Amino acid sequence: MKILPGHGSGGRLMNELIEKTIRTRLGAHVQLDDAALLSIDGPIAFTTDSFTITPIFFPGGDIGALAVNGTVNDLAVMGADPRYLSCALIIEEGMEMADLERILDSMRAAADAAGVAIVTGDTKVVPRGAADRIFINTSGIGIVKKTPARREISDGDAILINGHIGDHGMAIMAARNNLSFSKGLQSDCASLKGMIGAVLERHPGSVKFMRDATRGGVASVLNEIVAGRPYGAKLREPSLPIRDAVKGVCGILGIDALYAANEGKAVMVVDNDAAESIVSVLREHPEGKDACIIGVIDGTHPGKAYLETAIGGRRILPLLTEEQLPRIC
Amino acid sequence: MKILPGHGSGGRLMNELIEKTIRTRLGAHVQLDDAALLSIDGPIAFTTDSFTITPIFFPGGDIGALAVNGTVNDLAVMGADPRYLSCALIIEEGMEMADLERILDSMRAAADAAGVAIVTGDTKVVPRGAADRIFINTSGIGIVKKTPARREISDGDAILINGHIGDHGMAIMAARNNLSFSKGLQSDCASLKGMIGAVLERHPGSVKFMRDATRGGVASVLNEIVAGRPYGAKLREPSLPIRDAVKGVCGILGIDALYAANEGKAVMVVDNDAAESIVSVLREHPEGKDACIIGVIDGTHPGKAYLETAIGGRRILPLLTEEQLPRIC
Repeated sequence: MKILPGHGSGGRLMNELIEKTIRTRLGAHVQLDDAALLSIDGPIAFTTDSFTITPIFFPGGDIGALAVNGTVNDLAVMGADPRYLSCALIIEEGMEMADLERILDSMRAAADAAGVAIVTGDTKVVPRGAADRIFINTSGIGIVKKTPARREISDGDAILINGHIGDHGMAIMAARNNLSFSKGLQSDCASLKGMIGAVLERHPGSVKFMRDATRGGVASVLNEIVAGRPYGAKLREPSLPIRDAVKGVCGILGIDALYAANEGKAVMVVDNDAAESIVSVLREHPEGKDACIIGVIDGTHPGKAYLETAIGGRRILPLLTEEQLPRIC
Repeated sequence: MKILPGHGSGGRLMNELIEKTIRTRLGAHVQLDDAALLSIDGPIAFTTDSFTITPIFFPGGDIGALAVNGTVNDLAVMGADPRYLSCALIIEEGMEMADLERILDSMRAAADAAGVAIVTGDTKVVPRGAADRIFINTSGIGIVKKTPARREISDGDAILINGHIGDHGMAIMAARNNLSFSKGLQSDCASLKGMIGAVLERHPGSVKFMRDATRGGVASVLNEIVAGRPYGAKLREPSLPIRDAVKGVCGILGIDALYAANEGKAVMVVDNDAAESIVSVLREHPEGKDACIIGVIDGTHPGKAYLETAIGGRRILPLLTEEQLPRIC
């Protein structure tokens, strides 16, 4: 069965799609009114993200899981406890209903795993050629707990990551290019809510900055941290956790893994004193089992992110002008 | 200047687009972090809507104004005071930058008029042919004040609307079909926040249900109200405020104005005693100056919405199965 224009009308077909296909899958928290009514106490974080990735199914996930985890992680890195998501679908006419169902099931599973409720939504159907199968927007609300305060960053702070770099971007590129040797390479798409919550709970005050390294990868996050500041970010190349399969795909495609998208990785800047202890907390969680210190904040190259090789060579990691990996999320 | 793939990367071009084009236009409330931090007290309403309308510029508005007002109105009809919006853009490569700028200016003007702040956003650029120029998702948060309680609807309640029916849908169809005689026909795209707030303020308890009549029009909203209930919704045909230009376009295209989209009209079910007084309040606002009573809840045809003509004939207004007007919002 294929998606028809009527599935996006205000009529019976749309009501059936919402009731029988969407709501049964996304769960009873979906409120059918024009807006969901929610009880909230105190300050909140509010975010939005549209997902246009191709292919929509890939090793380690799909656009549905990505849409949930991406927004959950945007809230988590802001020090908020993610609670409520919206789900807005733009579907191309002719999409297989079975594919839509699979994506919705995946959204629900990801939402359940992250402990968030999908509470409101919207469904549009556009003609063939007016979209590429499906785009998903998720917006999210989280309750603010402890927010990392980036202004305190200073020389000597440690730069951490919770695991391997570039898995998502290279899994997508391998899938697009049918690179058979990359078998086993999977997106790292995952919720970081539990892991980040534990770090902020056990080390309040030690985390100065946190950001999930999605589009633009680790190098772009570091550029954001140091832009216009009196300090730089030095990564130690031998410390970088990059899988051989990722290096292989990067080599073939001429891509630097430090600019490749991740969907389950956060870059953290923390007090050097607390760094080892925070790594231990990260490693207690499946999403952080390969956590490590990858670099340090220092004043040698203010405003720059750069890489120091094993033999002491330095390579600047500039903010890219153009896109290295299109439609990666 | 045209939109390039790099405008959707995590790099310099995207940063420039966000800083120079988007943020300057949408206003300084846009927070650049992964999520906006907001102070909220008490229960909230949360909604989302994606806008895929074609054409993106039309008499009386554009996709930007529509995206702001549509979400503002979804919150307002739930009895919430709209406060914060997100703005997620999916832009087709090659779109004219000037068109994007015009749309953003329009969003800002609509947000200012409605008294809401755009606080967070996302920008994706997809290749030519993967989208149709621009899709905009706005999600919104409002503070809940008085919520209409639909369960109290009963025989004798009055059905109100705040002005002419079908203007948006027919303005769009006229623009698409170059119907020159429809000159002057404009979308009714507008924020209903002030008008609805005044009604709920001055007549707390008298409004039982409220819904903006967008996709599917007035007839679809009425079907939603009466579905499975022991009462029906009777519209009095001579009472329906429908412009001659709308009737003209409807006649030519074979469309029933009662199913045409509106973007500045709310259908209300209110206590009959208070109906005239509520109409007076509506008329104090520009969006409600042509407000009137268009029908009544009664038990003759339970579960049905229907029309009674001047000579007493009756016509059922079924819930349509398919789409009458594609890509109308």
